[in-house]
Amino acid sequence: MKLASRLDNLGTETAFAVAAAAADWKAQGHEVFPFHLGDLDVPLAGHIVEAMNAAIADGKTGYCPGPGIPELRAALADDIGSRRGMSFGPDEVTVMTGGKPVITKFLQAVMNPGDEVLYPNPGFPIYESQIEYLGGHGRSYRYLPTDDGFRIDLDQVRDAITDKTVAIIYNDLQNPISAESTDAEREAIAQLAIEHDLWVLSDEAYFEMRYEGTSTSIASLPGMRERTCILYTFSKKFAMTGSRLGCAVAPAQMSTVFSTMNTNDESCTTHYVQWAGIAALTGTQEPVADMLATLKARRDAACEIVGDTPGMSVETPRSTFYLFPDVTEAIQIVGARDVGDFATQALHATGVSFCTRNHFGRPQPGEDRSYIRFAYSGLPEEQIRRGLGGLRDWIGSHA
Amino acid sequence: MKLASRLDNLGTETAFAVAAAAADWKAQGHEVFPFHLGDLDVPLAGHIVEAMNAAIADGKTGYCPGPGIPELRAALADDIGSRRGMSFGPDEVTVMTGGKPVITKFLQAVMNPGDEVLYPNPGFPIYESQIEYLGGHGRSYRYLPTDDGFRIDLDQVRDAITDKTVAIIYNDLQNPISAESTDAEREAIAQLAIEHDLWVLSDEAYFEMRYEGTSTSIASLPGMRERTCILYTFSKKFAMTGSRLGCAVAPAQMSTVFSTMNTNDESCTTHYVQWAGIAALTGTQEPVADMLATLKARRDAACEIVGDTPGMSVETPRSTFYLFPDVTEAIQIVGARDVGDFATQALHATGVSFCTRNHFGRPQPGEDRSYIRFAYSGLPEEQIRRGLGGLRDWIGSHA
Repeated sequence: MKLASRLDNLGTETAFAVAAAAADWKAQGHEVFPFHLGDLDVPLAGHIVEAMNAAIADGKTGYCPGPGIPELRAALADDIGSRRGMSFGPDEVTVMTGGKPVITKFLQAVMNPGDEVLYPNPGFPIYESQIEYLGGHGRSYRYLPTDDGFRIDLDQVRDAITDKTVAIIYNDLQNPISAESTDAEREAIAQLAIEHDLWVLSDEAYFEMRYEGTSTSIASLPGMRERTCILYTFSKKFAMTGSRLGCAVAPAQMSTVFSTMNTNDESCTTHYVQWAGIAALTGTQEPVADMLATLKARRDAACEIVGDTPGMSVETPRSTFYLFPDVTEAIQIVGARDVGDFATQALHATGVSFCTRNHFGRPQPGEDRSYIRFAYSGLPEEQIRRGLGGLRDWIGSHA
Repeated sequence: MKLASRLDNLGTETAFAVAAAAADWKAQGHEVFPFHLGDLDVPLAGHIVEAMNAAIADGKTGYCPGPGIPELRAALADDIGSRRGMSFGPDEVTVMTGGKPVITKFLQAVMNPGDEVLYPNPGFPIYESQIEYLGGHGRSYRYLPTDDGFRIDLDQVRDAITDKTVAIIYNDLQNPISAESTDAEREAIAQLAIEHDLWVLSDEAYFEMRYEGTSTSIASLPGMRERTCILYTFSKKFAMTGSRLGCAVAPAQMSTVFSTMNTNDESCTTHYVQWAGIAALTGTQEPVADMLATLKARRDAACEIVGDTPGMSVETPRSTFYLFPDVTEAIQIVGARDVGDFATQALHATGVSFCTRNHFGRPQPGEDRSYIRFAYSGLPEEQIRRGLGGLRDWIGSHA
């Protein structure tokens, strides 16, 4: 039976192949250190589970409104607004089954077939997949390593904008790079969006996943609010990845569209999980602080060992839970063909499993450095030390 | 800011306007009998809630595989297969956030822009909305009232098939009509699908929502399995509408596509809700039997009163939880302009809120009878008797 040709343009997260290789190696009896997956090994907080059960006991088990229950939309508007120095109304909030649906629904809302959308590369692979799947043309922009950390290549962004460009996807506190915009960089992106009348999808999944400093939303800059859709998720901050709860914050005109899309696509987001979300937002924030402290200790442990590893270098990121070390020399030291071969050899020699730069977009012309991504959010510090320590020693044994 | 032109073709469930009118009337201090919503007033069964909490306690709170956890896929393959006299493998099952996502994902998988898809009218409004939204052309087919109940107009189906037709959406045990195919009718649809090499989306949301007789899946007919995608949902049978859990059962080729779509659209379905689903499938079936007994009593009460209502007539359906009475004469009796005006007058005179035929597709040329839909699944029998009794008396007072 024949399938539709649109499927030819449907990409995916190739990182799942890394997970499969790791699972296979583990099944053969080896210890595996899973640095490939951006998940959390943190239990769901007790008060969140209690709120969910209270909602179930209270009969919150039937259909609910497509854009979310009013109470959660109001709580999200308050919380997201106050943390960004902005003020949102509930009608600007559309609850979704996680942050990811915001990507496809935003693109469906703003992009006609043939239109162009800018997106970061390396970046979250679903951006490119959905742009191409929905008939658009993705134009990627890169990050350049500088003495001041990774910086967006603003010249490339500027050059990539044409009269077909309708939107730019912007992921400050970036996955996989862990890069963070300076105020000047964020303002430059905003200026380009305003100048060319572009929509902006601001992926703020890691907005509150930081250990130092403060986050700023591009939506809060002058002239940006009316053109920005914020992707918000409960996944990281509240260790709710498997709960599938997030939202879009967007101008009312766009939010109305999202609501209709929800009605078409999945009716609504799981009813009682929305009540759990209210508890997460308005209840004790101690579990969040505890988790961030735990993640910070893991970050420090991972950075320390990576810094001691021959042929690897990384700056200590102030946010996200990823390291994106340059491993160009390490690849040479162990005699690997390329970064993919390096990953395979590392898995088999040390059990350390990780994604490479290639899982976050096709390398751009002129890229001459190789990178990998360690997600340190899913392993206790002891495993981080043992896993990355083994990797360090294995590379050292070749040096 | 400009939005994409594809949104011009995005429909919705206009029944939400009915819900809004009912809520408005209630807010003005009137008692409302909500027959408009196909939801259930039945609590989530204790063992299902327990399984969900056990999963949470066991750390099933992180991401899980895009097509669903293997244990649920296996349980669904067993259950859905055995109830249809078929045998499915877990790789033919893709877990989704309810039954509804199967509609859009099926259409995306089989329909190119410009292709044609047949769908029932009256029928679930999202069929037409998604066909048109995704760039296809919907060709509706009707049900004709006969002495033997509503029958699909097979001549119309046959005439509507062109060389652009790629699929037919078939909803045996039909919402809103509550029609049920004879074996001959089902076989005729299958024969047309085979003859013209069409995909079939078999919406089996009400497959087990029956009070007499047995259900047959069109997928189980010879030559149909390889061209059929079954829409399955936990929503009705297990009173899990707000849990958002369902699946597609489809050939492995199509299931692989669904899995990639899940990875793109929402990563996965809520992890711990999937464990609740396993308990629903494999645990005690007493709550299901109790609910069906309750619904049967409600059906009988509603049918009895509708049968006594001047200008209304309905047959007693053996399945679903809808009545679709002919109200052509009742409209005349109360002096309403049309079926929409009849619904508004009924709400204001009696508090009874319901959808009309027009909420399930545009009336077809030649339709000369008027219908409404009563969903009796969300009201206790006492309210059914009081609400529909009041409606009967109001119409009677005009007769």
